[in-house]
Amino acid sequence: VITPPSTDVAARARQRLNGLATPPGALGRLGELAVWLAATTGRVPPPELRDVRLVIFAGDHGVAAHGVSAYPPAITAAMVRTFLSGKAAVSALARAHGVRVRVLDLGVDDDLADVPAAVRRFKVRRGTRPIHIEDAMCSMDTRKALAAGSAVALDEIAGGAQLLISGDMGIGNTTAAAAMVAAGLGLPASEVTGRGTGIDDIAMARKTRVVEKALHRVGGRADDPVETLSALGSADLAAATGYLATAAEAGVPVLLDGLMSVACALTAERLAPGAANWFTAGHRSTEPAQAFALSKLGLEPILDLNMRLGEGSGAVAAVPVLRSAVTLLRDVALLSEITPG
Amino acid sequence: VITPPSTDVAARARQRLNGLATPPGALGRLGELAVWLAATTGRVPPPELRDVRLVIFAGDHGVAAHGVSAYPPAITAAMVRTFLSGKAAVSALARAHGVRVRVLDLGVDDDLADVPAAVRRFKVRRGTRPIHIEDAMCSMDTRKALAAGSAVALDEIAGGAQLLISGDMGIGNTTAAAAMVAAGLGLPASEVTGRGTGIDDIAMARKTRVVEKALHRVGGRADDPVETLSALGSADLAAATGYLATAAEAGVPVLLDGLMSVACALTAERLAPGAANWFTAGHRSTEPAQAFALSKLGLEPILDLNMRLGEGSGAVAAVPVLRSAVTLLRDVALLSEITPG
Repeated sequence: VITPPSTDVAARARQRLNGLATPPGALGRLGELAVWLAATTGRVPPPELRDVRLVIFAGDHGVAAHGVSAYPPAITAAMVRTFLSGKAAVSALARAHGVRVRVLDLGVDDDLADVPAAVRRFKVRRGTRPIHIEDAMCSMDTRKALAAGSAVALDEIAGGAQLLISGDMGIGNTTAAAAMVAAGLGLPASEVTGRGTGIDDIAMARKTRVVEKALHRVGGRADDPVETLSALGSADLAAATGYLATAAEAGVPVLLDGLMSVACALTAERLAPGAANWFTAGHRSTEPAQAFALSKLGLEPILDLNMRLGEGSGAVAAVPVLRSAVTLLRDVALLSEITPG
Repeated sequence: VITPPSTDVAARARQRLNGLATPPGALGRLGELAVWLAATTGRVPPPELRDVRLVIFAGDHGVAAHGVSAYPPAITAAMVRTFLSGKAAVSALARAHGVRVRVLDLGVDDDLADVPAAVRRFKVRRGTRPIHIEDAMCSMDTRKALAAGSAVALDEIAGGAQLLISGDMGIGNTTAAAAMVAAGLGLPASEVTGRGTGIDDIAMARKTRVVEKALHRVGGRADDPVETLSALGSADLAAATGYLATAAEAGVPVLLDGLMSVACALTAERLAPGAANWFTAGHRSTEPAQAFALSKLGLEPILDLNMRLGEGSGAVAAVPVLRSAVTLLRDVALLSEITPG
């Protein structure tokens, strides 16, 4: 069980919040986020968020060859290169908001021999097997990926990260993530399956059947989070899960993104109960499985902008809202300082 | 009638949006905001928002002496001084997000002799009369305040403002603004009245009766927006209305804040039909009148964080979301540039 953020620090932060030269409660969610950031960083007021880091876990998914996505699998490798060139949507958002981006190939079905070796350092495998037919990968690959994510989190924390974000890239990954959420919550395929990058009704029916078959195939093994990752997940999703669990264990706050990030957060909470106290939700995506998982984790998203891009983009867009929360607790006068007479 | 933003520029912006290396529609509201910013600035892609300006219109309200607020009227002048010292909530948010703040005393019930003359340059009067008993001010004061707001908008635009925000300060101002919204939309007091800074049930009942009496007293005069401002508004609210109408007339985009800003936007739209095309809504406050007015204006707020602070704070917190929108249209690769093969 993960040690929760300090209730003592939270109480002191709330006391400061209540003393600000603003009507009680008038800061709404910004006040709550400020208290959470104080508790998770252990400081009142919380520190300025100068060092925020996004790690994008990339990997291919065997189901992508089975008509569940609007895009061909080759897009995964192309997008890894686009992240590295700084021309992806999340790259632009991260530059705009001062967030560092690290891209890691955990399971892209491409050698990516042209990209820096550091990007491939934690590569576990090329793609996964189609989850409606067989397990995505063996449990040794899952363990390797979990350990890789864990090592990455410790590495970023040692480098000075004050707040961590997990991002994703992988054609077919919403199929795997929806299946993971269904497995974790005991929900049917019809409720968790969403349109991902924007599939039509025919592909949607196919995707739902893939999730359904995968869940049926896996059966009671879904009760175990590691088995869930091996059977339904992927190296990239297992790594993100390890990263999130380790961030929580190390006592570093995490800002979650869309479906993949939240599916991994749910799995991290299953692996390490209490981890979710260290997480806050950056945005509400259009994927139904994300909403179910957020609700289970007790998290309310900061932004709700109908985004469904992945990459970590929704979380990065929410970073300035956290900075708003921080500055309120740091830089606003106390009512006692300004009241006349 | 106000000239709308260019549909031609909007079409070109949408074309660029659809060509980005992201699935169609995946950017959600950020894509829509980028198109709106392109249309209102006349440029594809829209410019980086380096010069965003908030003007806070301050004034006292006669109803504040009648038990409608949780705070005494003296807080208005104290908060003007707090803005000037940079220690208010909105000051901190504005610094964090690079927004310039200008504070103007339009109708504070205090000489404010200690503050810079520039702050008092447009002062129309000290406070208003209680609107449930008599008109807030004479029509000459309303005209002066409208002209002042208009001059301020032109001044800020001449100074280089790319985006304008209106903020407010004035104990009792949610009573006046709720009455203005009720007058503009033909709604009863019971539907528009909210808890403002956080009043209890007794004050809430009193506030609702004040709004009810004011609406009954004014009757059919509420059909005219200028009469509405004289009867139910204030110098600060009339100035904000003039400021918003003139920004729209000058073709400069505006980011609205909470109830006061949106009540004035509704009044500006009544004075200058089409003005609302130049407005977008920064946040949803907890005030019911704000929700009714936004709905009438066809605006969906960017943020929904249960804030009810005023000052322009919710709009300033939304500025980084507009910057996210801008960078996506400016700095992301086109799909045609990155597709393999």
